[in-house]
Amino acid sequence: MQEQDDDVELELQVSVAKVGKYATSESGDTLEIVERPQGGLSLVLVDGQRSGRAAKLISNLVSRKAISLLAEGVRDGAAARAAHDYLRAHRRGQVSAELSIVSLDLVTRTIVISRNSHCPVLVVDKDGLHRLDEPSQAIGVYTRTKPVITELSVASDTWIIVFTDGVLDAGRRFGASFDVAGMAAAFIARGDDDAAALADAILARAVELDKGRPQDDMSVLVLALVPRKQIDHARRLTVRFPLPPL
Amino acid sequence: MQEQDDDVELELQVSVAKVGKYATSESGDTLEIVERPQGGLSLVLVDGQRSGRAAKLISNLVSRKAISLLAEGVRDGAAARAAHDYLRAHRRGQVSAELSIVSLDLVTRTIVISRNSHCPVLVVDKDGLHRLDEPSQAIGVYTRTKPVITELSVASDTWIIVFTDGVLDAGRRFGASFDVAGMAAAFIARGDDDAAALADAILARAVELDKGRPQDDMSVLVLALVPRKQIDHARRLTVRFPLPPL
Repeated sequence: MQEQDDDVELELQVSVAKVGKYATSESGDTLEIVERPQGGLSLVLVDGQRSGRAAKLISNLVSRKAISLLAEGVRDGAAARAAHDYLRAHRRGQVSAELSIVSLDLVTRTIVISRNSHCPVLVVDKDGLHRLDEPSQAIGVYTRTKPVITELSVASDTWIIVFTDGVLDAGRRFGASFDVAGMAAAFIARGDDDAAALADAILARAVELDKGRPQDDMSVLVLALVPRKQIDHARRLTVRFPLPPL
Repeated sequence: MQEQDDDVELELQVSVAKVGKYATSESGDTLEIVERPQGGLSLVLVDGQRSGRAAKLISNLVSRKAISLLAEGVRDGAAARAAHDYLRAHRRGQVSAELSIVSLDLVTRTIVISRNSHCPVLVVDKDGLHRLDEPSQAIGVYTRTKPVITELSVASDTWIIVFTDGVLDAGRRFGASFDVAGMAAAFIARGDDDAAALADAILARAVELDKGRPQDDMSVLVLALVPRKQIDHARRLTVRFPLPPL
């Protein structure tokens, strides 16, 4: 995977879209974002075992531990191991969670991807599509669980796509399957450089495959490094969600 | 300030835009966001004393402390007091920071605004513009510093606008002043319900008043509760920023 061209200015785009399982009051997935103390940011996506409130408590516990360590400058692999140890000690090995961490590290100029999940992470760069799907254990249950870590150089036109198993298994109940990689590769090949549009398209397709009633919590995270279009130097963050009814 | 109409479904929009002082490598302001364990979210905006790397270290330290407590379910006022005590102990009262916390609390259905800043917070709701500008101390220096807290009921068409002193004082060096409240009230009166557009417009005007060279770190946070337009139940988050050159 390639080195950055010195003459291309880049911008980072991150977009997350998530919905809860149909007829549950909240998603059991947690996504948190934190600035790295030396520069850059980390995204932590946790899928707690089961769904609803019980899953949310677990995913929140795990993400809080990982985020607080990353915020202190702890390296990603150590943060993932610590989150595992913490969950396992806290719940005596009875509860598992899937944990993915994606970091843009501005010191090393790399993207670090840590997987404790059976869901693959997709990488699309100038060389094409790469599937990060080395076997990897969920955290919380076994001894000495550790993440599978991939480190990529910061380079233009690099896309990272992370999702939870509600997306991976979308449509399965109805005999269909979701080719997330094919959809992402086609989107990127069209030259559209909008991470939010890709995250929304993947989530919408997953919900559609489940006939409008998500069979599990679904979360999609897209991180893209694309040639800079913004003319100012501003950093921007937006959040949008519907409030639950009273 | 009004109660929510039972028959209006609401959506939350949060948007943050920030730039660093001209000719510094990074902004000394830190903005972090965290999900509240019982539901809702908290936004923490910290302006570290001075600018550049020194200010960033301070604002990062303060925001990390506040965020980690809020993530554990600690109430906003206690998190602000703790961030003060921590900074004061850590830096022996030699360094100050301005801290603002805005939380959407889905348990109490309120918006909680905590100010340790000389910058006003603007609230625009169906009753018009309110300026939260009660005298309030920066954290880190004096004993027993506490935040000024305002709690609002969740209601449709409520806007909260928070900014740091780079925005408040924009244009001052050139004999101009920035009527942020007037600009925000006019924007909202036009019926435009896009928090990102308002945050961008305020930041752009502040930079313009400083003749394109921000004289201090500038951050704007807009939180809006508006009638729901999204048709799905998804939660969405996006981040965008230019990468610093190699």
